[in-house]
Amino acid sequence: MDKPVLPKGTRDFGPAQMAKRQFIFNTIRKVFENYGFQPLETPAMENLTTLQGKYGDEGDQLIFKVLNSGDFLKNVDKTILESTDSKKVTSSIAEKGLKYDLTVPFARYVVMNRSEIAFPFKRYQIQPVWRADRPQKGRYREFYQCDADVVGTDSLICEAEIILMIREVFKGLNIQDYTIKINHRGILSGLASLSGSKEIESSLFVAIDKLDKIGEEKVKEELISRGFSADSLKTVFDILNFCGRAKEKIVFLNTTFASNDAVKKAVSEFEQVLSLLNDYGVKDDHIEFDIALARGLSYYTGCIFEVKINNVAIGSVSGGGRYDNLTAVFDSKEKSSGVGISFGVDRIYDAMEELNLFPEETLISSKVLFCHFDDACRKHALSLVQTFREKGISSEVYPDLAKPQKQLEYANRKKIPYAILIGSDEMKSGALAFKNMKTGEQQKLTLAEILSKF
Amino acid sequence: MDKPVLPKGTRDFGPAQMAKRQFIFNTIRKVFENYGFQPLETPAMENLTTLQGKYGDEGDQLIFKVLNSGDFLKNVDKTILESTDSKKVTSSIAEKGLKYDLTVPFARYVVMNRSEIAFPFKRYQIQPVWRADRPQKGRYREFYQCDADVVGTDSLICEAEIILMIREVFKGLNIQDYTIKINHRGILSGLASLSGSKEIESSLFVAIDKLDKIGEEKVKEELISRGFSADSLKTVFDILNFCGRAKEKIVFLNTTFASNDAVKKAVSEFEQVLSLLNDYGVKDDHIEFDIALARGLSYYTGCIFEVKINNVAIGSVSGGGRYDNLTAVFDSKEKSSGVGISFGVDRIYDAMEELNLFPEETLISSKVLFCHFDDACRKHALSLVQTFREKGISSEVYPDLAKPQKQLEYANRKKIPYAILIGSDEMKSGALAFKNMKTGEQQKLTLAEILSKF
Repeated sequence: MDKPVLPKGTRDFGPAQMAKRQFIFNTIRKVFENYGFQPLETPAMENLTTLQGKYGDEGDQLIFKVLNSGDFLKNVDKTILESTDSKKVTSSIAEKGLKYDLTVPFARYVVMNRSEIAFPFKRYQIQPVWRADRPQKGRYREFYQCDADVVGTDSLICEAEIILMIREVFKGLNIQDYTIKINHRGILSGLASLSGSKEIESSLFVAIDKLDKIGEEKVKEELISRGFSADSLKTVFDILNFCGRAKEKIVFLNTTFASNDAVKKAVSEFEQVLSLLNDYGVKDDHIEFDIALARGLSYYTGCIFEVKINNVAIGSVSGGGRYDNLTAVFDSKEKSSGVGISFGVDRIYDAMEELNLFPEETLISSKVLFCHFDDACRKHALSLVQTFREKGISSEVYPDLAKPQKQLEYANRKKIPYAILIGSDEMKSGALAFKNMKTGEQQKLTLAEILSKF
Repeated sequence: MDKPVLPKGTRDFGPAQMAKRQFIFNTIRKVFENYGFQPLETPAMENLTTLQGKYGDEGDQLIFKVLNSGDFLKNVDKTILESTDSKKVTSSIAEKGLKYDLTVPFARYVVMNRSEIAFPFKRYQIQPVWRADRPQKGRYREFYQCDADVVGTDSLICEAEIILMIREVFKGLNIQDYTIKINHRGILSGLASLSGSKEIESSLFVAIDKLDKIGEEKVKEELISRGFSADSLKTVFDILNFCGRAKEKIVFLNTTFASNDAVKKAVSEFEQVLSLLNDYGVKDDHIEFDIALARGLSYYTGCIFEVKINNVAIGSVSGGGRYDNLTAVFDSKEKSSGVGISFGVDRIYDAMEELNLFPEETLISSKVLFCHFDDACRKHALSLVQTFREKGISSEVYPDLAKPQKQLEYANRKKIPYAILIGSDEMKSGALAFKNMKTGEQQKLTLAEILSKF
């Protein structure tokens, strides 16, 4: 019998990791709720018709497909099977897939429940998603996303509040050195227009998105192969590489694109977001106006965001932006503008481990272990332990008759901070031996005295 | 474009349902932690080698299989494909499945992490599981289980604490009329021994499990077809139908099985559990010794439990028991006795809805909505809202410029209890119009006065 293994790219989370992850989840959840977002959960499985065609060809291939149940080959055309064309066969034997992100199922939910929703709809969602990506450091096949989105308003207050929420989450996590990069798809569209062809816009987004990874030269090569002229590329990179503070970039863009109303509108929206932050009484530190920020997903239309933790070799830990037509993919009459943010818990976790930022006290464990010397003492412990539990002090009685040393070792391994040792003396006198497992200090105290310590 | 739909047997949980579900999850989690159980999460996907062969043939067929990614047909033997035998093909194109329960992945985790675990290992796990069952009322294809298990001890204290936890969970949920049925697999084995054949033991468990659903006559027919004689069946059903209190049943069983040590041991274990409850100072109300309780799963070896909410047409909402060899399926050298309980949140939810037991205040929503009459007023609201959020009072500003009536309607639909209306008068005077959305009452109050109300 082979030892069991986990599927590639998946993980177990034992008690110590769970506690740290809960700390991150709870911090994010509290911020989302504080800003009026309400929880939503959608199923792990969605129909492939819902998922496919929303993430580009590459994304479609990364969707995990779930085999139809029962005799799934019964009604499949034999010629399709004999073609051994995996793509063709897939559509005949799998109609469901595991969700790839939380945004598309959210849009599907909005379209299906429009009449019951109070718009603008502010929802948050904390759930796992699945991608058949090649696993590597910081990239898993099953991972959690924590998303907050508002749909049904184009108010820039939502963009400003996304920035406020990012700040509050990082404050709650005790992460101090981070940068919120902001850009606007309208500015990138302006860059694309320099090529003279509107069609290669999305190629530009995808290529620029790789600047960090493959560098300027490779990106240029890719863009030339996509139809950009060397001339227009020079202009594009002069703009992308413009250095300066946000205000200087704003002036520069307004000058460069003086005759492009769309770019000027985009720049103005960015300015308004900064101005709103000021209305909230919030400083604009941590914020960087990054003209080269692109974000790959094609559905963004307005401001886009990305957060990096500085001095840690981990990619962006959070990202989002405004999209104007996401629900239209399900119903062409639906045009709901929305804006959202997604936090990547796994990368935040890795960064916090690296920076040693987790508080010491995250572990979920008993506060007290009752140890005993024989069956009668154990019986006595049973009568005491409920008193602790009734007061909400997590406690347990070592279940087996075992040497006290073994029982204390269990407390140590489980990081239980206090042990109460019950021997026949203690049963007679009513004074219990109360041991601090960290210091080793031991005192004889009454039950009431011990309870008063918690 | 067709309107999107959900896969059969799956559900979305909108804000109102989420809040109620969270109430159930939090109640259960708090009890588990209070008893010293620590959280664990395992992936949604497991290798099929891990899952298959653990739930019987029927169970294996109900496992959702995940198609191998990429060109999954590339290395598949053509003759297998041409056989169009779904079962054979499955094993060539799918090596992963969605988990069917939380117990088998837990056993897999224990075997893989034995050296790092402090035994007895008390873990809880709250996660969805998937079954390709025919959906019907109360039965879904994706549903949550809330499990607590202890492995590494055969102490009956664990059985007693399971009963204590069930009582605490139901108290926390305000469910008062329920029955905890208890039996012992050793007693059922004794019944099976009456047939003279040890092999048909599991047929007996499966058949008796259906008594509630199909009735005595049909169960008898099934058992006769499985090899029970009419004579032995009479004895079996005389025992199953014996009426009396727990103590009378104990005497009756000890007499009937006077020469069967295994049954006498089982009865004695049940007696000890009752006696332990007494040591904890807990009454034995809600408890029923039900000799006809079988539970289908084959891995149970000791006490078994099942909980029913009375006067509600919903099956059992919780169940569990002791198993002696669960980890042995992964490593024959592993023999860890364990015992666990599983709560079915979906059925508890349905029962609580039917009995109208959810507290009124579960909804997660903002406490305050800031409404405004124009852009300047909205700007003023932005400067105020952060003060509320900093104090942990969930608040939001209506993001769009809209008629006050529309803004208040939003508050109503989202069940936000208070609105603060900001007009030019309020901005000048500093006295804010504070409206109770339930009563309609409106007062002019200062910021400090409003804050003091929360």
